[in-house]
Amino acid sequence: MRVIIIGGVAGGMSAATRLRRLNESAEIIVLERSGYVSFANCGLPYHVGGVIEERSALLLQTPASLADRFRLDVRLNTEAIEIDRGRRVVVARDARGTEELPYDKVILSPGARPLRPPIPGIERALSLRGVEDLDAIVAAAAGSRTAVVIGGGFIGVEMAENLVHRGLRVALVEALPQVMAPLDPEMAAPVHDALREHGVTLHLSDQVTAIGADTVTTASGATLPADLVIAALGVRPETRLATDAGLTLGPRGGIAVDARHRTDDPDIYAVGDAAEKVGALDGEPILVPLANTANLAGRRVADDIAGLPGTARRVLGTAIVGVFGLQVASTGVNEKRLRDAGRRHRVIHTHPSSHAGYYPGAESLALKLLVDPESDAILGAQGVGRAGVDKRIDVIATAMAGGITASGLAELELAYAPQFGSAKDPVNLLGHVADNLRSGVARSLQWHELDAAVAAGATVVDVRTPTEFAAGAIPGALPIPMDELRDRLGELPDGPLVVHCAVGVRGHTAARILTQHGRDAVNLDGGYVTWRAGTQEVGAA
Amino acid sequence: MRVIIIGGVAGGMSAATRLRRLNESAEIIVLERSGYVSFANCGLPYHVGGVIEERSALLLQTPASLADRFRLDVRLNTEAIEIDRGRRVVVARDARGTEELPYDKVILSPGARPLRPPIPGIERALSLRGVEDLDAIVAAAAGSRTAVVIGGGFIGVEMAENLVHRGLRVALVEALPQVMAPLDPEMAAPVHDALREHGVTLHLSDQVTAIGADTVTTASGATLPADLVIAALGVRPETRLATDAGLTLGPRGGIAVDARHRTDDPDIYAVGDAAEKVGALDGEPILVPLANTANLAGRRVADDIAGLPGTARRVLGTAIVGVFGLQVASTGVNEKRLRDAGRRHRVIHTHPSSHAGYYPGAESLALKLLVDPESDAILGAQGVGRAGVDKRIDVIATAMAGGITASGLAELELAYAPQFGSAKDPVNLLGHVADNLRSGVARSLQWHELDAAVAAGATVVDVRTPTEFAAGAIPGALPIPMDELRDRLGELPDGPLVVHCAVGVRGHTAARILTQHGRDAVNLDGGYVTWRAGTQEVGAA
Repeated sequence: MRVIIIGGVAGGMSAATRLRRLNESAEIIVLERSGYVSFANCGLPYHVGGVIEERSALLLQTPASLADRFRLDVRLNTEAIEIDRGRRVVVARDARGTEELPYDKVILSPGARPLRPPIPGIERALSLRGVEDLDAIVAAAAGSRTAVVIGGGFIGVEMAENLVHRGLRVALVEALPQVMAPLDPEMAAPVHDALREHGVTLHLSDQVTAIGADTVTTASGATLPADLVIAALGVRPETRLATDAGLTLGPRGGIAVDARHRTDDPDIYAVGDAAEKVGALDGEPILVPLANTANLAGRRVADDIAGLPGTARRVLGTAIVGVFGLQVASTGVNEKRLRDAGRRHRVIHTHPSSHAGYYPGAESLALKLLVDPESDAILGAQGVGRAGVDKRIDVIATAMAGGITASGLAELELAYAPQFGSAKDPVNLLGHVADNLRSGVARSLQWHELDAAVAAGATVVDVRTPTEFAAGAIPGALPIPMDELRDRLGELPDGPLVVHCAVGVRGHTAARILTQHGRDAVNLDGGYVTWRAGTQEVGAA
Repeated sequence: MRVIIIGGVAGGMSAATRLRRLNESAEIIVLERSGYVSFANCGLPYHVGGVIEERSALLLQTPASLADRFRLDVRLNTEAIEIDRGRRVVVARDARGTEELPYDKVILSPGARPLRPPIPGIERALSLRGVEDLDAIVAAAAGSRTAVVIGGGFIGVEMAENLVHRGLRVALVEALPQVMAPLDPEMAAPVHDALREHGVTLHLSDQVTAIGADTVTTASGATLPADLVIAALGVRPETRLATDAGLTLGPRGGIAVDARHRTDDPDIYAVGDAAEKVGALDGEPILVPLANTANLAGRRVADDIAGLPGTARRVLGTAIVGVFGLQVASTGVNEKRLRDAGRRHRVIHTHPSSHAGYYPGAESLALKLLVDPESDAILGAQGVGRAGVDKRIDVIATAMAGGITASGLAELELAYAPQFGSAKDPVNLLGHVADNLRSGVARSLQWHELDAAVAAGATVVDVRTPTEFAAGAIPGALPIPMDELRDRLGELPDGPLVVHCAVGVRGHTAARILTQHGRDAVNLDGGYVTWRAGTQEVGAA
């Protein structure tokens, strides 16, 4: 049996090595267009910044090492230019010419290509996808003092950080009002703060209109110094081979595959960034250009070729990025998408400590949970903070995979010692809040619903201390400290009340007191901190 | 309604505050025998070592603060000496005398008391349970140069570490052949290494027979200098009040409760260390003296009193401890217990990196997974390493709660960027191994089964490099480096083969090659590293 794998990173290489372990006799040929195979894709930005000092650390395998260990026939600088399904051959081209390679199975793992919008001067912009791109960026950065990064997604913010580490003055231009599209705007606020604190100039809701010799011009009229220009506007699936071969694409522009990762030709599989995935919300087609998703699909394809039963699964798209020491992670869907889809949802914001507050080094987190109010199912989560965000998002992603409800998060037994968490872990606390909302013990209002509530006659009651109030408050809020509330009920005007504290904990207790005294009281979800983050972003946008 | 809560830490205080939020009018009286309420139990050892500098940081609440916020009637230095169920009164005693307090509901949260074995001189040994104990230990440590810690459980190792931080010379005496009983012996090996590296003298499989004026004598004949003696031999549930009141105890000596945390008197609840829990393996009664379990039970009791439906659940006992920078965590049951119970089980050891190896700062982890071979259910997990252990154990505990199988761990979507994990996260890798064992793609042998396999005629084949082999190898192993194996099959003797590498990854590939060449080959689970850890411990014991 001969299996031809097109693309030798992540999904393709996972398929190749797994297939060899399952089948010692198969002929496995890997065609890789670039000069490198099985390199550390996700580490590339960190060599730009010098965090990963040695370029060689990123080159995990070579054709020789893969031949020694796995008897793989890895051909670098070799492009698959055609799949002739009728004759069952892949046409490969390298510097010496073209070759026809008969196949029994093909695994398409060609990845995605960076989006390159038709901006005048775009040819000067560098994108980061492979090792050759890395080398070009490192060479260009060496002679540069200023840089503009176009695009505020994962690669864009990683590049901005690493160019700052390298000593460049960096501006980031993003068409949306926020960076990191998987986050909702109030969760992106601390990311913006971190970028700005470290000297990155943010140009949000703006677009690059022209790239000059050493500047960049934006739609808002700004001219930004740019010895170096990085285009990080996202990626588009590499589908030319597939479409030329008459294979079907999905609605999102990726190669359509079934639950076994097969294209509509059962002998041709597709994995990784080029293939569409099945989303976790409604089983909708989605693109998820993530290494872990690609690796698992590659492995499952090898299993399928070897006759091992596979498992179809929906994809949450759990992802994380570091931004100047901040951990920014998400899983599942966000509030923006739920609103766009017209889906009913419940939102929870919390600001717990990464570990017990009495133990040194605790950091404040911002967590957000999206919940289906009918089923109590978890729809998504987001987290931002300097420690422990990865853990909480991983736990929530696992809970989602296991069908644990939002309220059920309260019951999870998570490892607690004061340097690692709290006796009520942040994930448990999300569960407590969800349980309170589900059972009707609590009612909450979102930051973006506050203006409407006030317009409809609600009074905002701030139950923080006078010191907290003096440091910044919601305009028009009536300050009554939590511990005085029971004795000052008479000061509250008639009508509905929106109670809030800093993060929502005291506000919950206060709302419970008021409700039991017959008042119509809701708690401002996430408190002043979430409200400020959300309104700050709207203001900045 | 009057609710009397006996014990004002963890479970008791969680019940009190939750109940107040649910019921503004209930009279809630908390009787606390010590002079402190709602203190940071789990932080006490770290004040001994100076990690938590301020003693006041441990005192989270006072009766005054709890009265202000929650209208609780907290009575310190007040002991409940009797529950008269016939007359429905709790008899409380303080310095002024006794008082009868009528109740509608009682919540027993008296905790547990340190075990104090009848060793001559035991009265000089200090135990750490409350703030008064802490003060006594801090005072005694101030004048001490040497210390003996009796008992190598959570508190014992935390105390050993913190006394070292304080500058004392510390010996630890443990009756078992290992510290940290939740771990299996090969997983305890790195904990022993960490303790010894930091100057703690370990006396395992030994017992203290007498405590003298400034020494301690052990059964093995050692005399250890001991200006300070800490007894950390575990705890026993505080049940006197319950038994005096005629309430039933369970088989493990804790107060028996139902799924609603009620004793056999429906108006008396019991939570925390004093109450038995339902174990996750077979629904067996267990004792789990952990803060998070206590807190959740306290909350659920308040819900029950307020008429909110509760949820019964089994307890995994997820726990973690830090030992000189090492994270040591476990959830569910261990191999020792499964063997004792005669339960069939599958064992997996891995030694992955805490994050991508090419990104600076990656640490090697030791992970262990226990699996039910019939159902593929996860029965337990253990982890030891300098980073990321808490996250992986939390994810596995969550997977267990969600009913995700061992193989299903492969499918989890965990947040990956190189500073946080790997594209195949350590948890995914456990799933891959489990899936291989389940499907028959791989067969493995445990470190403690190797001698028997060799005695039965198996040849051990070491597929590591010559350099690795030279640095230490399994006696009698035949060295054939992995990448030469296909060309040197003829050198292998007849009969069964046990293949191994350093941690099990190359060994798996080698075993697959050999199996496909018709050989009877198994992979030594966890490789040389696990074998050495296990045999080293047996040797030391």
